[in-house]
Amino acid sequence: MRNILIIGAGKSTSVLIEYLLKKADSEDLEITIGDLAVENARKLAGNHPRAKAITLDIFKKEEREKAVQNADIVISMLPARFHIEVAKDCLNYGKNMVTASYISEEMQQLDDAVKEKGLVFMNEIGVDPGIDHMSAMQVIDRIREEGGKMLLFESFTGGLVAPESDTNLWNYKFTWNPRNVVVAGQGGVAKFIQEGKFKYIPYNRLFRRTEFLEVKDYGKFEVYANRNSLKYKSIYGLDNILTLYRGTIRRVGFSRAWNMFVQLGMTDDSYTMENSEDMSYRDFVNSFLPYSPTDSVELKFRHNLKIDQDDIMWDKLLELDLFNPDKKVGLKNATPAEILQKILTDKWSLSPEDKDMIVMYHKFGYELNGEKKQIDATMVNIGQDQTRTAMARTVGLPVAIAALKILNGTISTPGVQLPITKEVYDPILKELAENGIIFKEEQIEYLGYNPFGEVGN
Amino acid sequence: MRNILIIGAGKSTSVLIEYLLKKADSEDLEITIGDLAVENARKLAGNHPRAKAITLDIFKKEEREKAVQNADIVISMLPARFHIEVAKDCLNYGKNMVTASYISEEMQQLDDAVKEKGLVFMNEIGVDPGIDHMSAMQVIDRIREEGGKMLLFESFTGGLVAPESDTNLWNYKFTWNPRNVVVAGQGGVAKFIQEGKFKYIPYNRLFRRTEFLEVKDYGKFEVYANRNSLKYKSIYGLDNILTLYRGTIRRVGFSRAWNMFVQLGMTDDSYTMENSEDMSYRDFVNSFLPYSPTDSVELKFRHNLKIDQDDIMWDKLLELDLFNPDKKVGLKNATPAEILQKILTDKWSLSPEDKDMIVMYHKFGYELNGEKKQIDATMVNIGQDQTRTAMARTVGLPVAIAALKILNGTISTPGVQLPITKEVYDPILKELAENGIIFKEEQIEYLGYNPFGEVGN
Repeated sequence: MRNILIIGAGKSTSVLIEYLLKKADSEDLEITIGDLAVENARKLAGNHPRAKAITLDIFKKEEREKAVQNADIVISMLPARFHIEVAKDCLNYGKNMVTASYISEEMQQLDDAVKEKGLVFMNEIGVDPGIDHMSAMQVIDRIREEGGKMLLFESFTGGLVAPESDTNLWNYKFTWNPRNVVVAGQGGVAKFIQEGKFKYIPYNRLFRRTEFLEVKDYGKFEVYANRNSLKYKSIYGLDNILTLYRGTIRRVGFSRAWNMFVQLGMTDDSYTMENSEDMSYRDFVNSFLPYSPTDSVELKFRHNLKIDQDDIMWDKLLELDLFNPDKKVGLKNATPAEILQKILTDKWSLSPEDKDMIVMYHKFGYELNGEKKQIDATMVNIGQDQTRTAMARTVGLPVAIAALKILNGTISTPGVQLPITKEVYDPILKELAENGIIFKEEQIEYLGYNPFGEVGN
Repeated sequence: MRNILIIGAGKSTSVLIEYLLKKADSEDLEITIGDLAVENARKLAGNHPRAKAITLDIFKKEEREKAVQNADIVISMLPARFHIEVAKDCLNYGKNMVTASYISEEMQQLDDAVKEKGLVFMNEIGVDPGIDHMSAMQVIDRIREEGGKMLLFESFTGGLVAPESDTNLWNYKFTWNPRNVVVAGQGGVAKFIQEGKFKYIPYNRLFRRTEFLEVKDYGKFEVYANRNSLKYKSIYGLDNILTLYRGTIRRVGFSRAWNMFVQLGMTDDSYTMENSEDMSYRDFVNSFLPYSPTDSVELKFRHNLKIDQDDIMWDKLLELDLFNPDKKVGLKNATPAEILQKILTDKWSLSPEDKDMIVMYHKFGYELNGEKKQIDATMVNIGQDQTRTAMARTVGLPVAIAALKILNGTISTPGVQLPITKEVYDPILKELAENGIIFKEEQIEYLGYNPFGEVGN
């Protein structure tokens, strides 16, 4: 029996385990699920004869080392900052490793040692990062093999609510970690390149510099820029590309409304507010508006953000009950971002019957035999149920598939890796498609980066 | 002879030295000026028999210790972050010390040891911080002595250009460190309290939440909030005050125009721009605007910031030559803030004949015998010449006066101090007045914090 150690019983772990247990007999696998709270691990293991749950505190060196020693491969589903300790053990004891997180600098520094031992440390193999890498590189490599030269690459991903569960004015619900949504776009200017021009968008303009996107059968979406698109130049080998832009997908109108919170400072996570616990939602809003002895919080809000009487954005605020003087925040020493998250969670949580949706959209512009061409590739995936959400499946499945392929030696290039080579993306994308995670490609007219189809005059 | 060691030949040092040398015979002083570049120190020492210049590299421990040992008191005019090493030497060798900088945490930690040795380490004794503390505490203490209860304290300071030198559309020139002006307001939300309500302004709203101020004979000014006004609650003993607000003074219209730079991200100092050296001013501006195959940078700018055709803000941009395609930035690996500073310095530098101006304005609201009252105190000081600028005099004079009074034992309360006690502010404000730095007080009607004099209806 070959032992797969899975550390951390996160949201995607159940899908991951389900996949592996289905193959456990034919592949002769034993699955060990380690979590600080053993009952979480036990729930995932169920009564399956090939699954077992253990208590695993990754800060207890001996416990951690013992678990790694007993494994043939280790999957870390821990928060990204905790991978490194596990990685060092894997290196020591010569075990392969898989994570769905961005490669940290510390992780990257292990590269030489990992290669020397002939190990595979596969990272960034969830959905974003993960499926985005694989689906993009498959097309980029194909274009290059045909002799094409890449001119433009744009890539967008969004975790959204499925059309049938889209029941609020924001067309949005929390389908993953709400905190990441509240602080999205903070901590660095958005950088990208369009038609050879470097562009920079500060946080306070990010949600007003959106672009539209149309997905067949799913209608119109909007996109705001992700932090640093430029780093994908070297990762994807797109060094002389004219346009390189990555973004986050939302339904149209979300960003313009979200920008109200950004403008007032409600998404700030850098300081705690006085008396936050006893504050009402209305007090919270009023903290970001000028004092007035006479005017209402509502009128000050409208006036400060220049919101017209008939602007639908206003109804979005009312839907959140933002001006309620009776609802208390109830959080001690909370930052504005924490309080806003609380207010949003009241309204944006998924109901048991709600389904989520992942949308991914790539645009590839290239020149082939003197002709400019474009391929658009889209993937839409809708959750199956509360456990098998689109997010959990698109993260959990590629991790599970990769782990098994590494264990079986069909993915074998050593080093601290991300899934950008044929050896990795071809078999994994094939199996994802068998699981309903499918990209549709379309050859369209090349426009360059010309968002409104403008012609000068 | 009593030796005064002055470290750092900054902009205020010449005024400081002039003051001390005038008193050198009567007070039996010897002035030692230490600077890394000895020629700077020599220039300030001149041929005065009681002044001498030395090379002083504060990172050379022996050199630094020797200079401190030879002094009776040390004045550090170094950038704030370098005071601490000098302070430790002063503590070791039992020397008093004076700085014009905010008390750092490291400096505060020396307080017990400084008290134990009976030493005076006087800080924050320039103009802001400095004259603001002294002039405010003199009135606050007087109100309290009369039995009054403080309700409101607002305090504003600005380093501006004198009316006779006010020759550009921004009504502004750099009279001190341009860098501080470009990054002003960054690095923390503005916090204050108005009529018992805590208020928070994020950076991207700071320059649009200004208030007006009228100074007799000098006309109208505007004010934007300083970082954390709340810390003055404990410093000034204003714990139950209803309104506490500190701000920076500019001429009307400056902030609204400055906000254009903030909105586009041109004041960001956290990342360097690609190809900054070869960029034109126009390229710089275009980096913060969406790509378009057809539209001009000018139209994109107007459209993005919604600037009307007839808005005077536009002329302010043209005056800076911001859209010039031929002027090169010429700075390697520069941040947006560094590039903006370069562009502004072209136009906002003082000419030799230009004079600067310091404006300070305090409002004190209080209750006395059941009656609500208000005192407004204003100080306007205009520079005398290129060396004796208002900024250099209002920083250098209080430092010099304090140093001499500490040396003579009339200021003697030991510890890491700031000038908020009668022992310090009374004699220093008196001498500043003799030097033309004068506050005018006016008893006015108490309005509370009611910026527009509104009445509900």
